Amino acid sequence: MASRCLKLTVAYDGTHFAGWQRQPGARTVQGVLEAALAEIAGRAVTVVGAGRTDSGVHAIGQVASARVPARHAPETYARALNARLPPDVRIVRAEEAAGDFHARKRASLKVYRYHIWNGATAPVLGGHLVWHVPAPLDVAAMREAATAMVGTHDFRAFRAEGSSAATTVRTVYAAEVGESRVGPGWPLDSAVPAEPGERVDTARLVQVEIRGSGFLRHMVRGLVGTLVEIGLGRRAETEMRRLLAHGARADVGATAPARGLVLVAVRYTEEADRVPGR
Amino acid sequence: MASRCLKLTVAYDGTHFAGWQRQPGARTVQGVLEAALAEIAGRAVTVVGAGRTDSGVHAIGQVASARVPARHAPETYARALNARLPPDVRIVRAEEAAGDFHARKRASLKVYRYHIWNGATAPVLGGHLVWHVPAPLDVAAMREAATAMVGTHDFRAFRAEGSSAATTVRTVYAAEVGESRVGPGWPLDSAVPAEPGERVDTARLVQVEIRGSGFLRHMVRGLVGTLVEIGLGRRAETEMRRLLAHGARADVGATAPARGLVLVAVRYTEEADRVPGR
Repeated sequence: MASRCLKLTVAYDGTHFAGWQRQPGARTVQGVLEAALAEIAGRAVTVVGAGRTDSGVHAIGQVASARVPARHAPETYARALNARLPPDVRIVRAEEAAGDFHARKRASLKVYRYHIWNGATAPVLGGHLVWHVPAPLDVAAMREAATAMVGTHDFRAFRAEGSSAATTVRTVYAAEVGESRVGPGWPLDSAVPAEPGERVDTARLVQVEIRGSGFLRHMVRGLVGTLVEIGLGRRAETEMRRLLAHGARADVGATAPARGLVLVAVRYTEEADRVPGR
Repeated sequence: MASRCLKLTVAYDGTHFAGWQRQPGARTVQGVLEAALAEIAGRAVTVVGAGRTDSGVHAIGQVASARVPARHAPETYARALNARLPPDVRIVRAEEAAGDFHARKRASLKVYRYHIWNGATAPVLGGHLVWHVPAPLDVAAMREAATAMVGTHDFRAFRAEGSSAATTVRTVYAAEVGESRVGPGWPLDSAVPAEPGERVDTARLVQVEIRGSGFLRHMVRGLVGTLVEIGLGRRAETEMRRLLAHGARADVGATAPARGLVLVAVRYTEEADRVPGR
């Protein structure tokens, strides 16, 4: 039977998933996607994700590949999937890809963004999207330390315990620390402007965006955990450089909580992405 | 024992509350606030809310008043409350108010905002904050119809069935319909900019903001439900004016779902708000 390769862009709220990867007896993103696709295709379908996100990690631009029967167009698969999927996972886009497209092996760039809520009072509407750090962060120190991540390094100190990646060398293209003042209604638009003389309690939202060729398990969360310890003054700015030069797992800061992390986008080189003949 | 009057600004995610108002056997915002305040005060405390929001309605600027023992400063009450309250309700601000301050009776302005997600695919991270309307809305028609709300009208057609308000005349100061293009990651910042030639699937976020002296139960949701039926072309733009002139409950559009509604702010006249002698 003729088949086609789908490239799916997937968004999910990771809160109620035991991560991306299929596991017996657990609710995973790969698991619910494969179950829904099997119903549509009338046979088992394997879905490959670009990033095997941990339990609690969100995605707005995860990319997945799947070989499916050719009888439906990609848009038809997207509609049929969204009709069957639970509301915390959505197909944002479906495209046809080259027959040998593999969402993980062909990925050339992944973008992760981490959200730190730096203020006294955690946001009620977006609590599932942030790590609440009440003590004031030195963002300038974090920004300085983040520059040390950029480049090709051995990130072995930041991998998860028990990780079995063949190589722990990865390339980080950019690591940026941004900050903005936000109100108690975040992530909705800020409230009505304060009246003259009214005290407005705002928090600082510190975002860490990391772009790289690939990431080890827990690597982004370990980097952010270390950045926050630098921001809190518990470590020197120069610690990041030292850890990347010759750090051991035990020296690294605590792994930042999963809830603050979002897989924002995955990019492919043009060759890997394009359908032949288009 | 000396007491003081607190003015509390309160934010909550209404998803898991049976509304504001205390009810036996139900989890309500007033109920959890009163339970936490009683622990701190060592006696029963009544909390009065400016708006008695329905089950599922959110707030980022609800205001509440409570008479409490004078032995703690307002800021101390805020900290002690936030230490005891569940994460889906937070005290944003605590101030001292005049002894006769009453959060509901003294309110001079309330601002509600309603969020409509107008696109094929509902947002996974903000699904609890929007009404998902997939068919395209005529925002210009909605905007035109919204202008008819402004002014002093008898809103009896829009009140909840069984509502027992003494009068159904209310004044709406402003009713605005806004729209913005949003990405699949809403309400987080938009994703990485699309590459040249890449198709980006965005939705339209239609916001309805209504400012008024006060609102009947279900009034905002009835107004928004009617606006959406106008936006879908099921009713003429002129319907809103007709319903306000001589409508009956049965003529009004379906009540919009609670999840899209947020109580944004409550304002008081300076006299009502100020502590004597300050």
